[in-house]
Amino acid sequence: MNFTRDLYGTSLSLLTDLYQLTMAYGYWKSGLAEKEAVFHLYFRKNPFEGGYAVCAGLEYAVQYLQSLQFSEDDLAYLSSLKSATGQELFETGFINYLRQLKFTCDVDAIPEGTVVFPNEPLIRVTGPLLQAQLVETPLLTLINFQTLIATKAARITEAAQGDLVMEFGMRRAQGVDGALAAARAVFIGGAKATSNVLAGKLFGFPVKGTHAHSWVMAFEEEEEAFEKYAEAFPNDSVFLVDTYDTLEGVKNAIKVAQKLRTKGSELAGIRLDSGDLTYLSREARKLLDEAGFPNVSIVASNDLDEYLIADLKKQGARIDTWGIGTRLVTAYDQPALGGVYKMGALRDEKGNWQYKLKLSEQLAKTSTPGVLQVRRFISEENKFVADMICNEAEPLPEQALIIDPFDFTHRKAIPAGTRHEDLLMPVFRGGEQVYKLPSLPEIQARTQQQLRQLDPSSRRFLNPHVYPVGLEETLFEMKTNLVLSYRKTEAASS
Amino acid sequence: MNFTRDLYGTSLSLLTDLYQLTMAYGYWKSGLAEKEAVFHLYFRKNPFEGGYAVCAGLEYAVQYLQSLQFSEDDLAYLSSLKSATGQELFETGFINYLRQLKFTCDVDAIPEGTVVFPNEPLIRVTGPLLQAQLVETPLLTLINFQTLIATKAARITEAAQGDLVMEFGMRRAQGVDGALAAARAVFIGGAKATSNVLAGKLFGFPVKGTHAHSWVMAFEEEEEAFEKYAEAFPNDSVFLVDTYDTLEGVKNAIKVAQKLRTKGSELAGIRLDSGDLTYLSREARKLLDEAGFPNVSIVASNDLDEYLIADLKKQGARIDTWGIGTRLVTAYDQPALGGVYKMGALRDEKGNWQYKLKLSEQLAKTSTPGVLQVRRFISEENKFVADMICNEAEPLPEQALIIDPFDFTHRKAIPAGTRHEDLLMPVFRGGEQVYKLPSLPEIQARTQQQLRQLDPSSRRFLNPHVYPVGLEETLFEMKTNLVLSYRKTEAASS
Repeated sequence: MNFTRDLYGTSLSLLTDLYQLTMAYGYWKSGLAEKEAVFHLYFRKNPFEGGYAVCAGLEYAVQYLQSLQFSEDDLAYLSSLKSATGQELFETGFINYLRQLKFTCDVDAIPEGTVVFPNEPLIRVTGPLLQAQLVETPLLTLINFQTLIATKAARITEAAQGDLVMEFGMRRAQGVDGALAAARAVFIGGAKATSNVLAGKLFGFPVKGTHAHSWVMAFEEEEEAFEKYAEAFPNDSVFLVDTYDTLEGVKNAIKVAQKLRTKGSELAGIRLDSGDLTYLSREARKLLDEAGFPNVSIVASNDLDEYLIADLKKQGARIDTWGIGTRLVTAYDQPALGGVYKMGALRDEKGNWQYKLKLSEQLAKTSTPGVLQVRRFISEENKFVADMICNEAEPLPEQALIIDPFDFTHRKAIPAGTRHEDLLMPVFRGGEQVYKLPSLPEIQARTQQQLRQLDPSSRRFLNPHVYPVGLEETLFEMKTNLVLSYRKTEAASS
Repeated sequence: MNFTRDLYGTSLSLLTDLYQLTMAYGYWKSGLAEKEAVFHLYFRKNPFEGGYAVCAGLEYAVQYLQSLQFSEDDLAYLSSLKSATGQELFETGFINYLRQLKFTCDVDAIPEGTVVFPNEPLIRVTGPLLQAQLVETPLLTLINFQTLIATKAARITEAAQGDLVMEFGMRRAQGVDGALAAARAVFIGGAKATSNVLAGKLFGFPVKGTHAHSWVMAFEEEEEAFEKYAEAFPNDSVFLVDTYDTLEGVKNAIKVAQKLRTKGSELAGIRLDSGDLTYLSREARKLLDEAGFPNVSIVASNDLDEYLIADLKKQGARIDTWGIGTRLVTAYDQPALGGVYKMGALRDEKGNWQYKLKLSEQLAKTSTPGVLQVRRFISEENKFVADMICNEAEPLPEQALIIDPFDFTHRKAIPAGTRHEDLLMPVFRGGEQVYKLPSLPEIQARTQQQLRQLDPSSRRFLNPHVYPVGLEETLFEMKTNLVLSYRKTEAASS
């Protein structure tokens, strides 16, 4: 689906921070609007104290960029904004400039479903300063959230060790699109089904569901409730067994399963939604097996996440299917990815790139200058070895050396001839889309493939091994020199 | 704005969990679809370990309910769903039933901007079981999220002690609507402006913004960058001063402010976005005051929340305006409100209400039966005294006694004649909207008024006083008897 065309009935061109428009106005007034700039979108820390992230959200970003055009009522709104002294905030000339504005940038991006690491540009936007700046906020919104949730889903899928993971989180999601975009990202991360029917319709995902406690409460007896549900869904019934007493509920489910079998149908599963899931799942499994129902699956839900799943598995819980809601769709333990969007270079009058960085007292917050590419080195066993952030504008040496940007004594030489892939792919050229968006099942398969190529030590939840990502040697030197030159200027001027 | 009509171009009738539709099908097949039911939407715990919540999201809920109608492509999608054995999941008769379905329920709700407490129904839906069940998930999504964010905003506004609070969070929000609905809820909670231009356009909020680091990086010198920005916004400039060195940035801002003054304009403010905000704001204030700019405001941002604001104030930071992003729009420290939607009663064949509850091993998770109303008692000093949850179908005694549902020894007698208000107001009758939605400024004013009526001890962040909320005596007895009768049935049957 096209989320701007099919989901939203309105122009999303004002879906940005006001400062993007005030800066646009300033660039326009200062004659800098068309000056060529490069921006990089990246995050600084893996979410969930993990060892990786799974990038997602590019399809939404592509659709947003394709649709970028100010509607007449967007322009009327901008014309209506007033300054502190009551004048119009924006001159008419600028409104007219926006009216004819078309997106003409080059965009390079890492495909969705790729395993990525801190400081690697996920998106690079090259083009007129005004445009490249304007898209900062929406790109961050769309990429930050879906990358966060896809990563959470990948972790949960890993914890489930091949069991079916279903997403049940809509009721606790952050808004309508917090549910829809989350369902999409969860699928990219590895879940196989969602309860969200609109996501099923719009994205083509499998939809799954059981029933609520209220179904049971609508009947006099739990057993009758199960029977009636099974009449509607003879081969698709998953009974929620904990409305009154969980193990009594399992016994009622078994009675109904026996009746179903006499009619040639099989109960699909039972769901546990409260209590001690290890104890209850083991007891339920025993009851079901003893009654001749070894294939009835046990679904568990109740504020689960990767840590609880891993723990339940360690305790010997007999759960086949995991229904994950709140903690997945909100990424409860870290509900935001701190992605940023920083200028890397600006073309000067002579046509040369002038490299730019934002200084910070914290080294981790100092941005990397350049027109950056991410080169991933891959071993003969098809495992990821290391990633190099390099300046695409510079010729690269045969023998690559990467340097940890935050500890310059930490270096890694890449043997000559090591196979590599450049992760940033052309997506737009001169505002025209040149990238064929893969299907969601293709993206999901890519995530699985990428995770297999990442060493398990970097995938574990507790103190994961830090996958090596470094700056290419000449880029490291250029950054260092730029930092020192800024610091010198400061020292001289203070 | 109408969020379904103006924002979404598609039917939202499938914005629900699949199990709502499978239960609908089951009710339809069992002849229970039109049986009259009552459901209550409530949460069990105040968010953020606080002493209250501010309810929000009703306008979205009303618009969703008004638009509830399955489109032909919704129905085509539902018809396409298959059971495990390959048949159609839903019979054609049911699809036809959905085609002609119109929302005919009664809905009562607590107005947005009302201070609310755990276990109080925020919304009560009365009507045909199938319909009342179907709307569970979207009502929860819409009310949970906005209530959570309005509450967070109220806490942050309280911490800011009258300073201007602005919402800057779009880039870290959970999806498009995670940003838009959050901006709305933040306004309800007390913030005065947002950076989100689309929210400004759609909701009519004041929009505010400064500029990014990239603005400064686009020029050779910081001072030149400030000058150029001030040329575009002579009376609305807020300079971000920390691109290279914060206090040098303040000095550059002062130089430009002096030039502006010679032209008859005044610098509006400076923004600090990193470092020790207490030290930097005090030093910046000193530099500005000494240079003759006591009215230049100091805006601070950088992962702030109510705790950091309170702490910065205690340390003597000189900040006038707070730009709050991530931690506000995602409610970072608790990114979901655990709202639930439970059946309270079902009409039997004789036309009498049969009261219903969901049992749980945890007393806090056992629902309250009845057709509930929330009665708030108010002192002569116009302060909130206590809230009573009562069964509207029962006559109420003159002398009210409320009993803590989780500690029956905890009781409070309300003196006869104490003034009261019933919080649940008629919103729909027979599917027709009978409630005039207040404007957002009216809702914001209501929040402020309500918070003034709540004792400060219940508003504080650390170990707030628990505001008394109890069940009306006869309701308490009815609930107790119902729990005991279920437990007895269980004991007998096991």
